[in-house]
Amino acid sequence: MLTFTSDYIAGAHPQVLAKLVETNLENLSGYGTDIYCQSAAEKIKAACALGDEADVVFLAGGTQTNQIVISTLLAPYEGVIAAQTGHVSLHEAGAIEYSGHKVIQLECKNGKLEAGVIRDFLRTYHADENKEQMVLPGMVYISFPTEYGTLYSKSELEGISAVCKEYEIPLFVDGARLGYGLESYDNDVTLQELAALCDVFYIGGTKVGALCGEAVVFTRGNLPKHMSAQVKQHGGLLAKGRLLGVQFDALFSGNLYFEISRHAIEMAEKLKTLFKEKGYDFFIDSPTNQQFVILENGRMKELEKEVNFCFWEKFDDAHTVVRFATSWSTKEEDIEALGKLL
Amino acid sequence: MLTFTSDYIAGAHPQVLAKLVETNLENLSGYGTDIYCQSAAEKIKAACALGDEADVVFLAGGTQTNQIVISTLLAPYEGVIAAQTGHVSLHEAGAIEYSGHKVIQLECKNGKLEAGVIRDFLRTYHADENKEQMVLPGMVYISFPTEYGTLYSKSELEGISAVCKEYEIPLFVDGARLGYGLESYDNDVTLQELAALCDVFYIGGTKVGALCGEAVVFTRGNLPKHMSAQVKQHGGLLAKGRLLGVQFDALFSGNLYFEISRHAIEMAEKLKTLFKEKGYDFFIDSPTNQQFVILENGRMKELEKEVNFCFWEKFDDAHTVVRFATSWSTKEEDIEALGKLL
Amino acid sequence: MLTFTSDYIAGAHPQVLAKLVETNLENLSGYGTDIYCQSAAEKIKAACALGDEADVVFLAGGTQTNQIVISTLLAPYEGVIAAQTGHVSLHEAGAIEYSGHKVIQLECKNGKLEAGVIRDFLRTYHADENKEQMVLPGMVYISFPTEYGTLYSKSELEGISAVCKEYEIPLFVDGARLGYGLESYDNDVTLQELAALCDVFYIGGTKVGALCGEAVVFTRGNLPKHMSAQVKQHGGLLAKGRLLGVQFDALFSGNLYFEISRHAIEMAEKLKTLFKEKGYDFFIDSPTNQQFVILENGRMKELEKEVNFCFWEKFDDAHTVVRFATSWSTKEEDIEALGKLL
Amino acid sequence: MLTFTSDYIAGAHPQVLAKLVETNLENLSGYGTDIYCQSAAEKIKAACALGDEADVVFLAGGTQTNQIVISTLLAPYEGVIAAQTGHVSLHEAGAIEYSGHKVIQLECKNGKLEAGVIRDFLRTYHADENKEQMVLPGMVYISFPTEYGTLYSKSELEGISAVCKEYEIPLFVDGARLGYGLESYDNDVTLQELAALCDVFYIGGTKVGALCGEAVVFTRGNLPKHMSAQVKQHGGLLAKGRLLGVQFDALFSGNLYFEISRHAIEMAEKLKTLFKEKGYDFFIDSPTNQQFVILENGRMKELEKEVNFCFWEKFDDAHTVVRFATSWSTKEEDIEALGKLL
Repeated sequence: MLTFTSDYIAGAHPQVLAKLVETNLENLSGYGTDIYCQSAAEKIKAACALGDEADVVFLAGGTQTNQIVISTLLAPYEGVIAAQTGHVSLHEAGAIEYSGHKVIQLECKNGKLEAGVIRDFLRTYHADENKEQMVLPGMVYISFPTEYGTLYSKSELEGISAVCKEYEIPLFVDGARLGYGLESYDNDVTLQELAALCDVFYIGGTKVGALCGEAVVFTRGNLPKHMSAQVKQHGGLLAKGRLLGVQFDALFSGNLYFEISRHAIEMAEKLKTLFKEKGYDFFIDSPTNQQFVILENGRMKELEKEVNFCFWEKFDDAHTVVRFATSWSTKEEDIEALGKLL
Repeated sequence: MLTFTSDYIAGAHPQVLAKLVETNLENLSGYGTDIYCQSAAEKIKAACALGDEADVVFLAGGTQTNQIVISTLLAPYEGVIAAQTGHVSLHEAGAIEYSGHKVIQLECKNGKLEAGVIRDFLRTYHADENKEQMVLPGMVYISFPTEYGTLYSKSELEGISAVCKEYEIPLFVDGARLGYGLESYDNDVTLQELAALCDVFYIGGTKVGALCGEAVVFTRGNLPKHMSAQVKQHGGLLAKGRLLGVQFDALFSGNLYFEISRHAIEMAEKLKTLFKEKGYDFFIDSPTNQQFVILENGRMKELEKEVNFCFWEKFDDAHTVVRFATSWSTKEEDIEALGKLL
Repeated sequence: MLTFTSDYIAGAHPQVLAKLVETNLENLSGYGTDIYCQSAAEKIKAACALGDEADVVFLAGGTQTNQIVISTLLAPYEGVIAAQTGHVSLHEAGAIEYSGHKVIQLECKNGKLEAGVIRDFLRTYHADENKEQMVLPGMVYISFPTEYGTLYSKSELEGISAVCKEYEIPLFVDGARLGYGLESYDNDVTLQELAALCDVFYIGGTKVGALCGEAVVFTRGNLPKHMSAQVKQHGGLLAKGRLLGVQFDALFSGNLYFEISRHAIEMAEKLKTLFKEKGYDFFIDSPTNQQFVILENGRMKELEKEVNFCFWEKFDDAHTVVRFATSWSTKEEDIEALGKLL
Repeated sequence: MLTFTSDYIAGAHPQVLAKLVETNLENLSGYGTDIYCQSAAEKIKAACALGDEADVVFLAGGTQTNQIVISTLLAPYEGVIAAQTGHVSLHEAGAIEYSGHKVIQLECKNGKLEAGVIRDFLRTYHADENKEQMVLPGMVYISFPTEYGTLYSKSELEGISAVCKEYEIPLFVDGARLGYGLESYDNDVTLQELAALCDVFYIGGTKVGALCGEAVVFTRGNLPKHMSAQVKQHGGLLAKGRLLGVQFDALFSGNLYFEISRHAIEMAEKLKTLFKEKGYDFFIDSPTNQQFVILENGRMKELEKEVNFCFWEKFDDAHTVVRFATSWSTKEEDIEALGKLL
């Protein structure tokens, strides 16, 4: 069975796994204080061109990371601005609200917030005489790439960053698929530029080569106080923090994180070409590892017998939008095999 | 200075206050167990044509009521559906999210949710293969009248009630201004019909004759367990619960609640006529005690010198939407005085 | 029936009620922005010998006040130190934990925490190498008088205040029955001294002459940010904030608050003498308005036929501890009538 | 450097790691729906002699597990009874309170709650006329082994289980170190008996052979509704749930979990003998893998140069309690090397 269901269908990249095996019997201190967490943090800061002002915290998964970053950076009475289709808005089972904060959902295009829309919202909020009865917007959350595979251009990021600075609220970039964004052929922003434009972001591991793990980068001396205690309070502190440190140490040794991301993009481009050649329509033009294809329902049923992919949404009564995802683990032969089925 | 800022500018209706004075030195038991709370509950149930299956709980204010009703009726992982312009969506400083629940904001017209929109949302949710990653919609919240002064017709309420029954989730009606809705000339639903169509609603006191207080009616044996403890846990239990019981006992003695509501409607109709005659435009056609008028900014500045009203929102660069509210305490002479200023 | 069940069995003191009646039809602004809230705040600050550095916030009840003060002053990861028998520890249905904070319960004597016990706890905590896995103690909560009617002496308060300063955490005094403490014959601390020794405290109204209401005093520029929004977020903001302002304005006009408190103490002393003369034993030696008497169970059953009092706890198989409370509303003739029954 | 700091200093047991390597490139479905999670769940149910009435949920770590189990089984207004020294009481940074629930801390002996103490508490609670102002005790939490390494005997567990049944509240057993308890020479309860005596418990993986992971067993059709959504809401759902499933599948293939636990016990017994022979005193008599030794402070400083162990608490001014932990990864030669240093 061919499988393109998601970008978390395989285990870890072999080099990541090898590092886990290699270090397995070393005796290390707990809760993220070990040498691999430290080493990985240093490598990540170097890759981001950040110095001592930056802090790196390793967490196990994306929803956990969004919940912890948002709730530790916001005041208890603040909410977070996000796209209506943002992961925190729709697909985290209410994890942000569970931590007491409103997700202020703004309209978006192709999964992306626009600087102008954010500025208008903030201006209107601050001009409202009844604003103390509303939730104070205390952060902007965007995803890079977005949930629809789309990317913010450097100038779009600069625009959003400028609004955040104007209103003195942090910009948080969810990088669950960061590698696939950075390595996209369409991307024009570097990791260093991204780090400079936001206050906090995370480098996704779960979807990019790790068994689990996200590396959160607080870029400017803004690590929340007592962060280790707060992570534990949220249930997110792993006793064997090494599990995350070792994996990110491997991913940021040499250029591994970027190379394996590049592979996923190359596979996605092949897949895209394939669908185009066969005359399929795309729901959205995605330059990253997630491709959203519109399938006629009968065709979909047929295809499901030999390929796993992901239901996305109903398109119309006769068609469905489905997602095909590539990843570091996608094999070229699988793309070719898929081609024969289309 | 003339004042039309809101419907909570005065104290209590004189008959309500008189009852507080009359009962003041009686020794009564605490926490809502006193005879006046019991008597008021019985009168309210009678007015709603409800029997022993119903329970009445008195709370101090509207946001508290919404927070407590929603969070005690929902499972911890459920969210509440509301209009984008609903009070719980916009003007409660995040009180619902503070209690851990998402407000699922759906598009609305003139402040009103439509049965079809709710059904489509629920159908799409339940058809989504990833629905376990989304917030389970566990309740529908509407306001009667809405935050824009508009009313659901009986058939609209029946439609929403039917959707709720179909999906087995409770319908909660926020009646902070219930009296002003029921007594509107345009209204076609009775208190009894309303009670029969929903699972829980509240009869607003703060805005309709009381110093404070809302009477929550659970219509069908659905009083949350250990409700007194839960109200206390939320900080909402008054030691002298009598303060609420006595006031509602007065409001539901004879026809008082409805008569004083009717007065507000009559005053609103006069005010409406006045603005119409003078050629002003309305932002929305409201049949209840809140009237939303579009003022040219210069005219607004002028008027503000002699009349208090409430900023609502910017209309365009030259105009502003403002709210004039009447209430049980509005005097006819004030309307007339306003007429001379227009 | 004679009633000594609690100190909230009657309505408001007649002068307080008169002020509500007198101001009832004035048109006032909402949410605590009215002139009576302002006037009451000024009078309270003057009575406390506090200046512009202080802020006064009016809330409706005790549990609400404790929840809001504690959760707005603590960081989300901090807990509050309290006596094992403290109101927040035992009798608020988990309202503090509901807001996400642990009540760190320390042993106490006669309802009172000791400075030495608090210091030992804080020293041990800060010396613990695993302290990041524990809840950070971020505040000390005490009651004056305590839940057992006992009082801290001035030197005891100075001791606790010194510990709090040493560890840089605020001291919060729950004054639900503050008047009855200040006017106790045994008390040696003035309102001004109390205000100087703590960071935040509240002046109880519900139990001392008001229908409802507590006046929270933040003594040193430490009003939480966006307090009005935070109060609303907790469901505690009254639209007609005047209800609280007017009552406290009356209570702090002249010496009313203190005079009516003194009356309760005089009544409590008479009641105490009565029980002593008749040979009853006390569970605890209380110098304030709550008296805890040990009754033989048969005697208790007998007495219950003609007097209402409050079950406190089982003493042994044959005896029960019960509470008799006096208040501003207690009549001398009721004490005398009770005497005849003993 | 010799290391006895904790039972989570090494990675995974080699057989567990081998299984991760072996299955690494298989394409599997996400969020715990994969075949290894299913297989592991079946093996665990078989080992517990449980059938279809039982459910197994895999989570990443201990605090997360305690938070999720407690908050999904309790009603929002309920609290959990635990020993004063319980992990949830002291060492989870307030994770239970963060989820809104009070930990009702009862006195304990050697880390153990007694059935009689629990029954007395529940009896007193239910007899209290003011119980609606208190937190409803909705669950009993115990640890097996406890935080002090001690064990409940079968008859002690039966006693606690009986109290829980009498009051109709679930019994939850924290088995973070379950294997080390079951394999203790002093233990008289089997895994099957434990499963039959409680409503929910978990089999610790993080401390017993896994990189991370705890297997929660709901023993009697009491899996919380929408559990997957609730786990995600708490930030605990791993995209690659296989990471947990594969590890537990390995641990419960053959007798691995028990064999490696037995090894830790054998090492602990050697270590215990060593300390005894050398004349050291124990803080507590622990029959499991954690040994608490009282060291004279100078001796401690000396030892720290060559051995890592864990500070536990101050004993007196001259002595300190420290913990030496063994685990599946402890080598006999390390124990011998330690012997030479004592």
